Amino acid sequence: MPANARRIPRPTAQRLSLYLRELPPLIAQGQTTIRSQVLGEKLGVTSAQVRKDLAWVAQSRQTGEVGRSGVGYNCLKLYEAIRRVVGTNRRWSIALVGVGNIGRALLGYGGFEQGGFPITVIFDSDDRMVGKRIGGRVVAPMSALRRMIRSRHIAIAIIAVPRSAAQTVANQLCDAEIKGILNFAPTRVSVAKGVSVTNIDMTVAFEQLSMDISIQESIAAEEDGA
Amino acid sequence: MPANARRIPRPTAQRLSLYLRELPPLIAQGQTTIRSQVLGEKLGVTSAQVRKDLAWVAQSRQTGEVGRSGVGYNCLKLYEAIRRVVGTNRRWSIALVGVGNIGRALLGYGGFEQGGFPITVIFDSDDRMVGKRIGGRVVAPMSALRRMIRSRHIAIAIIAVPRSAAQTVANQLCDAEIKGILNFAPTRVSVAKGVSVTNIDMTVAFEQLSMDISIQESIAAEEDGA
Repeated sequence: MPANARRIPRPTAQRLSLYLRELPPLIAQGQTTIRSQVLGEKLGVTSAQVRKDLAWVAQSRQTGEVGRSGVGYNCLKLYEAIRRVVGTNRRWSIALVGVGNIGRALLGYGGFEQGGFPITVIFDSDDRMVGKRIGGRVVAPMSALRRMIRSRHIAIAIIAVPRSAAQTVANQLCDAEIKGILNFAPTRVSVAKGVSVTNIDMTVAFEQLSMDISIQESIAAEEDGA
Repeated sequence: MPANARRIPRPTAQRLSLYLRELPPLIAQGQTTIRSQVLGEKLGVTSAQVRKDLAWVAQSRQTGEVGRSGVGYNCLKLYEAIRRVVGTNRRWSIALVGVGNIGRALLGYGGFEQGGFPITVIFDSDDRMVGKRIGGRVVAPMSALRRMIRSRHIAIAIIAVPRSAAQTVANQLCDAEIKGILNFAPTRVSVAKGVSVTNIDMTVAFEQLSMDISIQESIAAEEDGA
């Protein structure tokens, strides 16, 4: 992978996930190639943007050629190439810290297992929870976190604890040499260099909706007044 | 608001939420202006991108001038202008459908109230849940959904029901003239024209982390090999 792969733009990275969603149904239907324009229409972006996005995929030395001018992309090759870049060609065991409402919701969610991200170990600081079985997994104590994450080579952890405990948990995860953290606590956490953090800020999702609605209303008001 | 406000690019729309996070601490510290470059550094984007993003805000007839070349943006004016575009200058009451684990996690989350998005009415199809008090709100039956949403002028609803029930609930919400839906069910829902839907796909968040980690590992392997 060339050095500049590290600078893959975030919007492109996010769209790679969306391309991954579109391709399997086409492959299942026996479609062999797809043009950038058709793929763009599915995602609501221009064909030029699709070609730019997929140039990042093709640039990776691991992936080889995925598309040819005038022919379109080979669906299967493109799918496998994106999977290698995104890392979903392998299975990522996930550690969950905190089995309150958010933790239980995630355990009950079901979509992670089939997406290649099974939650395999769960932790809680509450002694009354430790040893209990939730969603088929036994709650381990925080004292076992470092050992279990290291011995099982777990790279990704979910923080699903209250705001006040989030930084302490982040420190413990960094100490256990975690590589990535999905943080559901409504606060930012500081991590060791090289650790990736994705903060799930639900308020942002509401803001996107309120923006859409506000704009729609303005347009409607303008049309009424015109 | 000009007609092209409806075409605000999605990445810009998402960054508007981030600008909203950065400005209040500065205003609280008494800072009056901020340059695009400083704002860009906080968000990890170029100053040119910041100026482009904020041009969308300034374009809105409602907002007036927010920045002047060489002086920077007036923090307070910019904050208020973005709030008007995003719609967080008003309070949005939220309806929650489904009080299972995800619903309870959202009720317990706490961040929505202060973000201007309080969950004010909650519904469930399970007769055993109806009438129960959860997080200070009483669970209403689905039969009351249309009436309550319309009489309270609720614009945004959360779908937090199992996959199998999601489309039925979406239909009921559209029938109640909802304007926006935040969908936590792991499936896409079809809605009436003009209704905005944001799907919360947790697997995408994991994929972003696995991509970051895969790229880091490739770089490390390359450096080892060099």
